[in-house]
Amino acid sequence: MSIDRASLLTGAAVREACRTDQFSGQTSGLAPGFAQANLVILREAEAAHFREFCAKNPKPCPVLEVTEAGNPCPRQSTPDADLRTDLPRYRVWESGELVEEPTSISHLWQDDLVAFLIGCSFTFEAEMIRAGLPVRHIELGVNVPMYRTNVPCESAGIFSGPLVVSMRPFLPADAIRAIQITGRFPAVHGEPVHLGFPDQLGITDLSQPDFGDPVPVHEGELPVFWACGVTPQTVLMEAKPEFAITHSPGCMFVTDWKDEQLATQ
Amino acid sequence: MSIDRASLLTGAAVREACRTDQFSGQTSGLAPGFAQANLVILREAEAAHFREFCAKNPKPCPVLEVTEAGNPCPRQSTPDADLRTDLPRYRVWESGELVEEPTSISHLWQDDLVAFLIGCSFTFEAEMIRAGLPVRHIELGVNVPMYRTNVPCESAGIFSGPLVVSMRPFLPADAIRAIQITGRFPAVHGEPVHLGFPDQLGITDLSQPDFGDPVPVHEGELPVFWACGVTPQTVLMEAKPEFAITHSPGCMFVTDWKDEQLATQ
Repeated sequence: MSIDRASLLTGAAVREACRTDQFSGQTSGLAPGFAQANLVILREAEAAHFREFCAKNPKPCPVLEVTEAGNPCPRQSTPDADLRTDLPRYRVWESGELVEEPTSISHLWQDDLVAFLIGCSFTFEAEMIRAGLPVRHIELGVNVPMYRTNVPCESAGIFSGPLVVSMRPFLPADAIRAIQITGRFPAVHGEPVHLGFPDQLGITDLSQPDFGDPVPVHEGELPVFWACGVTPQTVLMEAKPEFAITHSPGCMFVTDWKDEQLATQ
Repeated sequence: MSIDRASLLTGAAVREACRTDQFSGQTSGLAPGFAQANLVILREAEAAHFREFCAKNPKPCPVLEVTEAGNPCPRQSTPDADLRTDLPRYRVWESGELVEEPTSISHLWQDDLVAFLIGCSFTFEAEMIRAGLPVRHIELGVNVPMYRTNVPCESAGIFSGPLVVSMRPFLPADAIRAIQITGRFPAVHGEPVHLGFPDQLGITDLSQPDFGDPVPVHEGELPVFWACGVTPQTVLMEAKPEFAITHSPGCMFVTDWKDEQLATQ
């Protein structure tokens, strides 16, 4: 069964379509104005360390909400949601190995599972577009280029690894505006971590991203780098916890929060 | 007669020392935390055009207050001040020629004179220093380097000319922070107008500023450019109105407003 994407205009509509198996695709562009979130589910023991890791690295790992152990409802952001059914598709990991990619995780739910909702750059990209800034990868219809850096995250328990950044090229005046706009959204990575000199981050070739697709940086543009939500995902994969569930790439949880609610002003 | 600079801790103390001829020096570093302002005084006819020029070019010409014609008191910012006596030193201009540099302009005051107080970058530099950012020209004890650009201001009546910018070099992460900090202060030029590529502004040699002193831009640093309060002064000099009074360079009006009152958040 499938549903017209154009009818999925709210977080509730997307979640309902997921829950009733009418939708299992990517969420980019759905429910405009509603904040989307990355999902990480861990057992309580690892969750404690992961929570500490996020707290120590808020720019790549901005936690929007953490559920109580065993409760699949994110009560603050989306009180009527069930994280076991309300995403389009999940990935299930055992000791770092992908074992299943289901559209529901009800059959896997246990009383000691804790879910993390982590802010997503869709929110600030929507604000940049609203402000008239040209976002290169969106204009080209590709994924944002992402790079592992030589900047280590602060580690916590089994979780450690390098900061991963996303890159968007801008003319200088637009870069200044982009810094101001994204700085209003600390809950979704906030202002950039760097601009101008990729080699200062240990990035030697912008045309060879580690994740996503390359985009051109034109003469007179500055490459601008934001902390990226792929950081906690790569850290998670490298830590290889016995059991973990994440969203499937691009298949995010759509909250009831409006993007603008995540702004500090 | 002279007074210990260290005793001039408030706007009121500086103004009192000026008014009583105990102080006629530069105001940089005096009355920490109090906003200082550039002064431009014109006859009513030219003042109307100058007001329009400032309104059209708010980044280089952020007007803090305009007095009523004939009234030398800036009632909003500093109700007990007298702009005829409360600055350390003035410059008097006739048809673009400097004719006098007095410590009081009481003898020149007329009923058709209008005074403009224009925001000054001292305010945002104080905020940058408070945030721990290294401000190169202050560390070196020289004036900020300033450059005429190839960017024309919007003209109004007799007033037209290029945007003048000041330059402060920063490492990329500090440049991002500097953009965020100064963006909070639209009343004192706000966020930068450019960073990274001086040639995009028509600046061919950073070591040859048009005003102020050169400062080194080190490897791995970005030159960051802010709209500069010298813009309205150069425009004024080029317009050559029959009569004008300004502050003498570095001898600003110290208001009762605290720097923080000029922040938008």
